[in-house]
Amino acid sequence: MSTIDIQQLQVVLEEAVALARKNSEGEAANYIPELASVPVDLTAISVRLLDGTCLVAGDDPEIKVTLQSTAKLVVLIGLLEEHGLDQILQWTKVEPSGGDFDSISRLDLYGPLPSNPMLNSGAISLSARIPGNAEQKLAWLDGWMERLFGTHLNLDHKVYASERRTGDRNRSLAYLLKSSGMLPGDVDADLDAYFALCSYEATPTQATHLPMILANGGRNHNHEQVISPDTTRTVVAVMSTCGLYNQTGTHMVRTGLPAKSGVSGYILASALGQAGIAVISPRVNAKGTSIRGAIMLEHLSKAMGWHFAC
Amino acid sequence: MSTIDIQQLQVVLEEAVALARKNSEGEAANYIPELASVPVDLTAISVRLLDGTCLVAGDDPEIKVTLQSTAKLVVLIGLLEEHGLDQILQWTKVEPSGGDFDSISRLDLYGPLPSNPMLNSGAISLSARIPGNAEQKLAWLDGWMERLFGTHLNLDHKVYASERRTGDRNRSLAYLLKSSGMLPGDVDADLDAYFALCSYEATPTQATHLPMILANGGRNHNHEQVISPDTTRTVVAVMSTCGLYNQTGTHMVRTGLPAKSGVSGYILASALGQAGIAVISPRVNAKGTSIRGAIMLEHLSKAMGWHFAC
Amino acid sequence: MSTIDIQQLQVVLEEAVALARKNSEGEAANYIPELASVPVDLTAISVRLLDGTCLVAGDDPEIKVTLQSTAKLVVLIGLLEEHGLDQILQWTKVEPSGGDFDSISRLDLYGPLPSNPMLNSGAISLSARIPGNAEQKLAWLDGWMERLFGTHLNLDHKVYASERRTGDRNRSLAYLLKSSGMLPGDVDADLDAYFALCSYEATPTQATHLPMILANGGRNHNHEQVISPDTTRTVVAVMSTCGLYNQTGTHMVRTGLPAKSGVSGYILASALGQAGIAVISPRVNAKGTSIRGAIMLEHLSKAMGWHFAC
Amino acid sequence: MSTIDIQQLQVVLEEAVALARKNSEGEAANYIPELASVPVDLTAISVRLLDGTCLVAGDDPEIKVTLQSTAKLVVLIGLLEEHGLDQILQWTKVEPSGGDFDSISRLDLYGPLPSNPMLNSGAISLSARIPGNAEQKLAWLDGWMERLFGTHLNLDHKVYASERRTGDRNRSLAYLLKSSGMLPGDVDADLDAYFALCSYEATPTQATHLPMILANGGRNHNHEQVISPDTTRTVVAVMSTCGLYNQTGTHMVRTGLPAKSGVSGYILASALGQAGIAVISPRVNAKGTSIRGAIMLEHLSKAMGWHFAC
Repeated sequence: MSTIDIQQLQVVLEEAVALARKNSEGEAANYIPELASVPVDLTAISVRLLDGTCLVAGDDPEIKVTLQSTAKLVVLIGLLEEHGLDQILQWTKVEPSGGDFDSISRLDLYGPLPSNPMLNSGAISLSARIPGNAEQKLAWLDGWMERLFGTHLNLDHKVYASERRTGDRNRSLAYLLKSSGMLPGDVDADLDAYFALCSYEATPTQATHLPMILANGGRNHNHEQVISPDTTRTVVAVMSTCGLYNQTGTHMVRTGLPAKSGVSGYILASALGQAGIAVISPRVNAKGTSIRGAIMLEHLSKAMGWHFAC
Repeated sequence: MSTIDIQQLQVVLEEAVALARKNSEGEAANYIPELASVPVDLTAISVRLLDGTCLVAGDDPEIKVTLQSTAKLVVLIGLLEEHGLDQILQWTKVEPSGGDFDSISRLDLYGPLPSNPMLNSGAISLSARIPGNAEQKLAWLDGWMERLFGTHLNLDHKVYASERRTGDRNRSLAYLLKSSGMLPGDVDADLDAYFALCSYEATPTQATHLPMILANGGRNHNHEQVISPDTTRTVVAVMSTCGLYNQTGTHMVRTGLPAKSGVSGYILASALGQAGIAVISPRVNAKGTSIRGAIMLEHLSKAMGWHFAC
Repeated sequence: MSTIDIQQLQVVLEEAVALARKNSEGEAANYIPELASVPVDLTAISVRLLDGTCLVAGDDPEIKVTLQSTAKLVVLIGLLEEHGLDQILQWTKVEPSGGDFDSISRLDLYGPLPSNPMLNSGAISLSARIPGNAEQKLAWLDGWMERLFGTHLNLDHKVYASERRTGDRNRSLAYLLKSSGMLPGDVDADLDAYFALCSYEATPTQATHLPMILANGGRNHNHEQVISPDTTRTVVAVMSTCGLYNQTGTHMVRTGLPAKSGVSGYILASALGQAGIAVISPRVNAKGTSIRGAIMLEHLSKAMGWHFAC
Repeated sequence: MSTIDIQQLQVVLEEAVALARKNSEGEAANYIPELASVPVDLTAISVRLLDGTCLVAGDDPEIKVTLQSTAKLVVLIGLLEEHGLDQILQWTKVEPSGGDFDSISRLDLYGPLPSNPMLNSGAISLSARIPGNAEQKLAWLDGWMERLFGTHLNLDHKVYASERRTGDRNRSLAYLLKSSGMLPGDVDADLDAYFALCSYEATPTQATHLPMILANGGRNHNHEQVISPDTTRTVVAVMSTCGLYNQTGTHMVRTGLPAKSGVSGYILASALGQAGIAVISPRVNAKGTSIRGAIMLEHLSKAMGWHFAC
């Protein structure tokens, strides 16, 4: 690992925020009404180096925002650690789908296995494998959130209720999975676990922990092996090919940063061997990607030379 | 770059070949009749380290086999060097399609831009942008082949004639591109360039040059910058997300080696910062991937710890 | 209306049954377990002339079999009579889908309106518009069944329970409709109405009443106008283009008899200006069409010259 | 056949034209540049009764307009007469596709047989079966045009040249058919026959002959059996399910008149047992249907009670 010039990096982060703020395209996702409580123009970036140093730029880095689909990484990691890759591949494929994040037709035409665990269908399939009853599933999520983000995260109950109330498309996916034998248990319990997963909230600085661990071979800033190298490689490979749905290829060409997007406006990205990154800005495009977030990541990648293929 | 134990690597290559030979699934592609002239059980691997050292294992490493779709990298690289990424993105997207290598429906439904340049549609779109008339297009290809493989490569005229005679599905793709304005010139000339591209032949040891350059930031074993770092990053990112069509995600999870497959049984792969790899074995699966080739790459990646996310 | 030779017709029916029995392809649908209670080789045909004369051939004509999807005609007719065509077109299109009877991808890609009311999606959308609460919906169905079949029909509660228990794919369709605003009320109540609709049972002779009314401009054998000419025309047109899902075109070319199939093995068909026909045989093909039933209809059409385009 | 009140019918035709002229939606198809030579607001209707009486209303009934896709009926009829239905079903299915008239993805996903002979793909497949070389194919078309329209029709050479020059999408379809073995001969010759087929021109009064023959069991106004009853039934059934592409269901519900549309603005329709109808108006919708033409047919059907399900 080359030494990183902290001062230069701080300048780059400020530039990234300034550049992003020039763009006001996109809108906050409206299908989960409670997401509207986050200021639509919130724009922030946080970078955590492998030694734990954390830099921030932009708006309030202590605001709590729900992780939404970036939390799909948590259930994937937890189940990989507990069951291994071969078992996970019985529950989902790991192929880019070429379709939207919530595509039902893709699952109908190419199923019964979901295309990958970054899609709603794949994450619902995995959430159904979290062990135990409703309370135990929540405890499992609590545990893995704490392990991967280094601190206890809370579930935003308003967002959770909002997801449950408006999640008919996800229910449709779940019953389609159920009809082909992919959900062995109770659909409502499985969906509750999935909705809970998406409703954990974190600040941008908290959110950097997970991508930093992935950038560091599974180790945290204290050199503790939080997750295995095998799990780390698998997850980074999945992020590289599927993390931003049908924008992943363009994202990887533009930045070289394996990442995962969420409809709250978070993108968590791993600069391999360098840092974990969290960007947040609620204006998303039709593919569910934070527009300002993508701009910040591209600037950071180019300015710092952080690209997996360097 | 860590020092590589050459003796250990040679053992790993021998193991990879032995492991691959236990599998006899798949068949040689039969839609290009001339491909049948290569022995169906040919199995070889060649690895070129960044200093130029080249190791081989398996069958005759001096056999010449046509590059087929692995040569799509050549037209992508050449045009990136001459026009830059923004221009290339006017001719093709860089997104995994989720579909087959020769999918027409994908282009019809999501066009007019092809999904990515590793697909037939994307490579035909790019081949149409090679400058000049028929002779000049061939000269352009000759030049880029020599530059990227370090030696003059010949075009296998029997395969070329075979491709031209049997390429009705590619003609269908080309006229679909033409109908939406993506092919400004003469369809027959564009297709001839594409068929020629696929018909260049190389030995496994020759074939390692290109992936080694990509593994080495665009430099050859003499530290000459053959292609720019920007082009290198773009091409490796495209390989990582699209190189094996709708098997790319699984391949990246299994190996972490950005690669490009061809229906002749070649897979060219880049161990970033380590080596260029060529595997050859004509038995391919329904997705056009060499089955023994994939086995060899997975063994090599695991045994040597060559994975982009380490 | 030309006079029909009853003796000749009886011979034709016997021939039809004999011809059908030579074919043993297909299997009873197994996704509704209770359907298996009907003998798999049951083969019968019943024809009701416009004056009420009813002829039968084959196995026990007094066996009760659930109507399954043939009952989709009932909800379509009832709502057309109560709301008129323009209102119905707000709830479903009337276009052949080119896809399977339970296609979810079709609804996802071409929705939010279902393609037509003969598909599961379209019939669920219409079932959601049956007025009232659960009991009132059942009463509405009871009423329309009696009106169109000339007698009270019972609901087979075992089949109903079986449909409810195993109907996850229909639940998926319903939640997809719900997610796009097509189901204004309670999904479970809507689905219960749909499952009930499919679970009414009738004998072959009873089952001829509805197609006879459609063949007779909306009048029953007592010359009573049971449904309006407008509704009759609409329903016959829908049967002609969509009644056998993605087998409708072939069926119309082969027979010229507007019809509706059901997975229990019923096909109800209208010989316009001539007769109502019910054929029953549980062995169905992949498209949910009774194989022996289709053979009987084709023989009857050819032998009697009953084709709408004569 | 009930006696038709000629005076009433003439009034209805005038009403139909007046009603249609109130609508100015749609535009003349622009992908065949020569079609633009017909006045875009041309609006005419012509009806030929079974005894040969011909009524007209609207603009110049002697204007010549190319038949475009309405001529697909001619190749279907000719080949049915020469080979019979079973042979034709080796060359095309007869199922509504649910997709657009020139869909390539539909053929790619559900082929190798085209869905039906009213689609471009199906008509190209059939055109490839017209016997002989290029001149002989044209002579075959000349012969069948004369037989079915009662007079010699000319080919509009400007439109023919325009079709050939701009027909890249049809070329794509043809090569896709070729790649799956559906076109045994020379693609260019097959396409030339198809382009010629679409380029024959007729006046509205001439154009009524074919649909009148179909409305009359295959007989012309002189009671001559021009085509067999079997062919007539098949063609009317195909028109009923596929004649207006993915608007056929709506059209049949609205009018009950089996018909075939063409992008020049013609719709030929058969009022079974009553009359042959030609409407012409170049403004078409996205599905290639003449908008004013559809309005005229609906008014005529309703006012005269001409519906196949009466």
